[in-house]
Amino acid sequence: MQNFENFLVKNLPVSKSIHPVYEKALHQMLLAGGKRFRPALLLGVVNAYNPLLQSGAMHAALAIEMLHTYSLIHDDLPAMDNSPLRRGNPTLHVAFDEATAILVGDALNTYSFEILSNAPFSDYTRVALIRELAHNGGLNGMVLGQAIDCYFENKPLQVEDIKFLHTNKTAKLIAASLKMGAIILNKEALGAMLYNFGIKLGLLFQIQDDILDVTQSSQEAGKLTNNDEAKNSFVTILGLDEAMSQANTLAHELSKELSSFDENLKHELSALLTHYINRHI
Amino acid sequence: MQNFENFLVKNLPVSKSIHPVYEKALHQMLLAGGKRFRPALLLGVVNAYNPLLQSGAMHAALAIEMLHTYSLIHDDLPAMDNSPLRRGNPTLHVAFDEATAILVGDALNTYSFEILSNAPFSDYTRVALIRELAHNGGLNGMVLGQAIDCYFENKPLQVEDIKFLHTNKTAKLIAASLKMGAIILNKEALGAMLYNFGIKLGLLFQIQDDILDVTQSSQEAGKLTNNDEAKNSFVTILGLDEAMSQANTLAHELSKELSSFDENLKHELSALLTHYINRHI
Repeated sequence: MQNFENFLVKNLPVSKSIHPVYEKALHQMLLAGGKRFRPALLLGVVNAYNPLLQSGAMHAALAIEMLHTYSLIHDDLPAMDNSPLRRGNPTLHVAFDEATAILVGDALNTYSFEILSNAPFSDYTRVALIRELAHNGGLNGMVLGQAIDCYFENKPLQVEDIKFLHTNKTAKLIAASLKMGAIILNKEALGAMLYNFGIKLGLLFQIQDDILDVTQSSQEAGKLTNNDEAKNSFVTILGLDEAMSQANTLAHELSKELSSFDENLKHELSALLTHYINRHI
Repeated sequence: MQNFENFLVKNLPVSKSIHPVYEKALHQMLLAGGKRFRPALLLGVVNAYNPLLQSGAMHAALAIEMLHTYSLIHDDLPAMDNSPLRRGNPTLHVAFDEATAILVGDALNTYSFEILSNAPFSDYTRVALIRELAHNGGLNGMVLGQAIDCYFENKPLQVEDIKFLHTNKTAKLIAASLKMGAIILNKEALGAMLYNFGIKLGLLFQIQDDILDVTQSSQEAGKLTNNDEAKNSFVTILGLDEAMSQANTLAHELSKELSSFDENLKHELSALLTHYINRHI
């Protein structure tokens, strides 16, 4: 993912004005590391079929990372998760102030669509990418998931409800990242298949995150949340053993689906999942 | 604008889930009245040249109103203007809570682009509309303006800086509303002309708003802001007389430009400006 990091650094949002820290605040969370999991998924799909489209696909990967980054900035706010640390650094509202953090999040949200509107694709592809990102990252996707997460703090959810929560909060954007790769390739059936795969992958990703939250120290995780105990998680609802068991079941299902994929795609995604999910599926 | 109100009510965002108030919160500020100034500008331009395109143009007008509404919800937050009232009603973070207000704003921001991605236009027009809205409503437009407004609270600005602030915070979205009408009509030169007209119109709109803030009671204005006195305004920087004089100069310039417009466009915009700007220009 070194190529993506270079592309990101060269394509940071530019905003020169009398505001002394706005541009710096726009860049800070984008440059604070992060796993770049969603860009890697999109680029992996494109690379499996047509590596010549990689450089164009970088724009779409960047748009997803912008949207993902805005969501982290807003999730960390005092009115939501109230997190002082993210990726081992002070969160944006701590480093600057709340107004700046809200506005930088707003700016990155909108900017993700501006990037896609100017990306080097046909208008047909641009519109399909914008529709996919907005649909999964918006009011019946990621934002709904976070709204449920916040509303049901201190109110235990049923198993099916926490699955719904994280299907929206986490899995839909992961699924959209894979599908957007297929949109760039103009492969509609592949997109539908990858979207379903991505929903399961997103749930696995979240269950493992919840497991790591209780088995890893906050220093290792690089984040600190004041109200983690009040939040619903797969571990608080299922217990650690059952959460691990469900993670294994999902990993098994994903492994089976993966084996039916085209050889190059299987190769790309296996490598990514080994790297990111930290187990061979 | 009764047609637009009906269209809005029929096209409110739908989100059914276990969240008991999310959908209600999404609707509340959209239905709380508002002048619908930006939709009226877009629809006025389209109507001047091709009334048959009105029903399609409603989608674009709706997208602009969604984006404008999200900006009001976020501007009212405690970390920004800390306003308890908007349009005579409790602001969203007062009626619900801060997390809900932030998330509803986020959802409406993203939804404006989803609406445009599905609007009944060619992909070429959809992309041009998305680019225009994102560029003017985003990090080097409306959001930058609000960031400067918040950062320079209690720090008096120079005249040229407050013009820059409101060119971004207010005028660019008004200019984009006019230009998006021209984009729907596929009239590029008209779009450029209307954009410049809209920037001046937006500044006039803001100066008059600042004048009304000091000459009208908060009950008449239907809003209450705790820190209005700490904010830069054309009146605090120029004084009331000079602000009124600059408003007259702008109105005179707009009137002159308007007289050079095509007959139908002149007719549509004159009627709108008389209605909204509350003076004949």
